[in-house]
Amino acid sequence: MGVDIGGTKVLAGVVDDTGAVSSTALRTTPGRRGVTRQAEDAMVEAILEAAGGQPLAGVGVAAAGFVDPAGDRVMFAPHLPWQGEPLRELLQDRLGCPVLLDNDANCAARAEAHHGVAGGASSAMMITMGTGIGGAVLVGGEVLRGANGMAGEFGHMQVVPDGQPCECGRRGCWEQYSSGNALVRNARTLMAEQPSVLAEMSGGHHERVTGPMVTAAAEEGDLVARRAFASVGDWLGVGTANLVAALDPEVVVIGGGVSAAGDKLLDPARAALRRTLVGAAHRSVPALVAARLGPEAGMVGAALLVAGSQPRG
Amino acid sequence: MGVDIGGTKVLAGVVDDTGAVSSTALRTTPGRRGVTRQAEDAMVEAILEAAGGQPLAGVGVAAAGFVDPAGDRVMFAPHLPWQGEPLRELLQDRLGCPVLLDNDANCAARAEAHHGVAGGASSAMMITMGTGIGGAVLVGGEVLRGANGMAGEFGHMQVVPDGQPCECGRRGCWEQYSSGNALVRNARTLMAEQPSVLAEMSGGHHERVTGPMVTAAAEEGDLVARRAFASVGDWLGVGTANLVAALDPEVVVIGGGVSAAGDKLLDPARAALRRTLVGAAHRSVPALVAARLGPEAGMVGAALLVAGSQPRG
Repeated sequence: MGVDIGGTKVLAGVVDDTGAVSSTALRTTPGRRGVTRQAEDAMVEAILEAAGGQPLAGVGVAAAGFVDPAGDRVMFAPHLPWQGEPLRELLQDRLGCPVLLDNDANCAARAEAHHGVAGGASSAMMITMGTGIGGAVLVGGEVLRGANGMAGEFGHMQVVPDGQPCECGRRGCWEQYSSGNALVRNARTLMAEQPSVLAEMSGGHHERVTGPMVTAAAEEGDLVARRAFASVGDWLGVGTANLVAALDPEVVVIGGGVSAAGDKLLDPARAALRRTLVGAAHRSVPALVAARLGPEAGMVGAALLVAGSQPRG
Repeated sequence: MGVDIGGTKVLAGVVDDTGAVSSTALRTTPGRRGVTRQAEDAMVEAILEAAGGQPLAGVGVAAAGFVDPAGDRVMFAPHLPWQGEPLRELLQDRLGCPVLLDNDANCAARAEAHHGVAGGASSAMMITMGTGIGGAVLVGGEVLRGANGMAGEFGHMQVVPDGQPCECGRRGCWEQYSSGNALVRNARTLMAEQPSVLAEMSGGHHERVTGPMVTAAAEEGDLVARRAFASVGDWLGVGTANLVAALDPEVVVIGGGVSAAGDKLLDPARAALRRTLVGAAHRSVPALVAARLGPEAGMVGAALLVAGSQPRG
């Protein structure tokens, strides 16, 4: 069983050894200002529904936040309510089975290395675009954890001095320009400038526009939606170029909900990567590819936590 | 024997197992627009002088540029003339002994891991501030090379959209705000606004101001020089915060010529790192420390290339 908990939803599913998902369940989450108990309830409900009455051998949890090196707690998360509470133990007590916890992007990266597009790469980077940006660095197929277990927090690298305010309390973070939130904000702003099918889709209420609506509108050729993707994609490429300068990976995998838009997102990102990467003419520029496991990568990677470990606790 | 070749000079020296340097020799280099043969001559002369007639068992070379993964060629360098010529083989033929080649910041990082302040750290980052910014990532004491051998090119991460033009052909690169070049540019600009001992030091010619002059002026308490360091230090901290978000190292080592200024550079950098690092209140913020081996780190690390290998070629 793997569970992926993000800022807006929790997805649980049964995952087999090949990474195939057989049964899933979805719940909404209360967000950062919500109550931790509500978030835990949402997870437990989703897990039990996906299990369908079968006994649980173990549950792996992928969380969109900073997880401590021991894998016990979510220390801090811009979009989730926990601040250091022992989430692993709390879930273990409620579920009565071993629970293992890691950052969502680390899980997604592990899933892509085992079952997806990063298999066999000596070095790779995973960038997950959901509400915000998560990330992971793979060296020799292993996730780089860092001294605090917090490596891969790409979304809060500053790309614009004194830029857009971010939920993390700082300004100009990359995820303010390239993420699901940024996509929706772009679309809302652009709707004031030119006609768009998004006006109809949202019933005339800009504030009801969602990321999936923008993706659907872009598929219909809507110019506002396409411009929103072009900007988010361009910033994806600029930030990726910074990371490639620092880490020089063989391949860059783009996952998370926004990556479902495929080349509408990736084509402008590839152009910006090639344009802004230092020494691009004197090196191989890494391929920028969509995660094979799509929005399920976090959940599949969470299940790998259980598969790759002895039961504990 | 270790050799460090940069944009303005080549330094060769005999290095023992403890990292101690016994005999050095210095030559000037022709810069990027020079002739490769002149740069090779300068290296061979410096090596032979440092050797003092003793036979050479092997020579390690640290070069300020992109070195290919096999360690045969300098592919591209903002301040050196080679563009893909087989430098390792050329030197080997002229010296009649094995030669090994790597990027200068990689060598400096290796030296600090073996003999300096990064010893024992499970993960570390090296940032070298000279004319520009170089860098290296250490994971488990090993330098992360990357798919093209180009990991660690921190200086060309974009920190200001449409910012200062850079020698690499792009705009807004980090090294345009935090490097020896940036320090001197800051000081020249500020001299137009307020009195400074730098006017006297440079004989009234702003264009004659150098990095060492700014360091000396700051030591005398000169306000222009101190403001120039405050800005370069602040940007050092901001860029370091971005890299720490991505890599979460245990320690960050600052080397290169500008690091000779010590806390005048590092204090504002530490303040900016703490201010801008995401989740700083929920993690241990890595120590920002000056390189122990100073300007000899590249040469000492180059010698380690030879010590750590079997003769080849």
